[in-house]
Amino acid sequence: MKIDVLFYPEKLKNAEDKAVVVLDVLRATTTIATALAAGAEKIYPVSSIKEAFLLKKKISGALLGGERGGIKVPGFDLGNSPLEYQGLKGKTIILSSTNGTKTLKKAVSARTLIAGSIVNAKAVADYLLKLNLDVVLMPSGTDSQFSLEDFAGAGYIISLLAEQKKIELSDQAYVSFELARSNPPEEILTRSFHGQRLINLGFARDVEYCAKLNLLDVVPEGHLQEGRLVIESSRLFR
Amino acid sequence: MKIDVLFYPEKLKNAEDKAVVVLDVLRATTTIATALAAGAEKIYPVSSIKEAFLLKKKISGALLGGERGGIKVPGFDLGNSPLEYQGLKGKTIILSSTNGTKTLKKAVSARTLIAGSIVNAKAVADYLLKLNLDVVLMPSGTDSQFSLEDFAGAGYIISLLAEQKKIELSDQAYVSFELARSNPPEEILTRSFHGQRLINLGFARDVEYCAKLNLLDVVPEGHLQEGRLVIESSRLFR
Repeated sequence: MKIDVLFYPEKLKNAEDKAVVVLDVLRATTTIATALAAGAEKIYPVSSIKEAFLLKKKISGALLGGERGGIKVPGFDLGNSPLEYQGLKGKTIILSSTNGTKTLKKAVSARTLIAGSIVNAKAVADYLLKLNLDVVLMPSGTDSQFSLEDFAGAGYIISLLAEQKKIELSDQAYVSFELARSNPPEEILTRSFHGQRLINLGFARDVEYCAKLNLLDVVPEGHLQEGRLVIESSRLFR
Repeated sequence: MKIDVLFYPEKLKNAEDKAVVVLDVLRATTTIATALAAGAEKIYPVSSIKEAFLLKKKISGALLGGERGGIKVPGFDLGNSPLEYQGLKGKTIILSSTNGTKTLKKAVSARTLIAGSIVNAKAVADYLLKLNLDVVLMPSGTDSQFSLEDFAGAGYIISLLAEQKKIELSDQAYVSFELARSNPPEEILTRSFHGQRLINLGFARDVEYCAKLNLLDVVPEGHLQEGRLVIESSRLFR
């Protein structure tokens, strides 16, 4: 089982045989895991706000969620704070965020596409062990910049894999593993550029929540349905 | 004093006010430091083998050094093994290597351009403290791939800076610092992709040598002279 970690979201090559884990720890993939754990049935990640409003017209009862510059989009039902995503049994969410949803769309060529975060690191690791495919962990970055929290998030998942199986790490995966080994999540998220920005915007509680390792036992898995990416709870992982 | 580390050699933006440290630990910048410590007066990094032969015609007594695929170029006086670079008092070297010399040329817009490695990490750190400029550490990579040993090499230099001064680390610089803090050089170089390749080519002694922290008290500094990059020992650093 070979493990690679990217520094930036890139167009994936040869992903057809691989499991790809997209991470946007602050906050899109944490929000996705939280929404599914709160009972949401489907999440449609969309790139633009316009696309979100158009899709809502087609899906009755869908909720619009997302942010631009960290702030809830006017006219949307929900922002991108995972703490808002509670009591969503049977709901459909249309989610647009600055980085995470765009990166998920870049990874649709994967054999298996997973949304990973720190809150569901163990569930994701267990599912990867079950799949037994080579793995690429793909941080979303922050506006095309390197993102410390996503890179460390990949490392926490790798640590959990390494506890249970002999895995082969690329040089980049080794760096991520070493970072995670010597830095607890709350320290990473608080010191990261993006964490600092969210704290300054008043989202300190979000940052604290997103650092809670292994809180949720859910694996968000993406599929194309009629040409559109949709994320649901994996039914295979337990 | 702000410190940034790149993952890949990139075209530098806004480097006019910065000190840029190019690293090709295995082996070009280690070889450059070793050659200067062995008395060489000037080193001309050139990109192509053709350029090397043309320049040699203009500089009487110059030695040609360099490699392609790790192996000495036919017709050259020296390979790229630092262990060959001994007893060079007053000599001029024309050096062409796969990655390092190309990266040095990408960094010529820097206010101060330094060739860094593990063998001269402390000398480089001391010089950076004296310059008191913002710093960009720039790994050469291995054929455009991420290079663990260069990224860790940057981290050893950062560790030495942090011992003496309050410095401000970018997220990428923090990852490099943490990697260096928890991994000794010989471990990094031996496990890296490029280190493994050199060991398989029979250069295990080179890999061992390139991991010797703070062996040489020399700072190779690059300048443009008549439009051509030349590297000499900095006379300012002590």
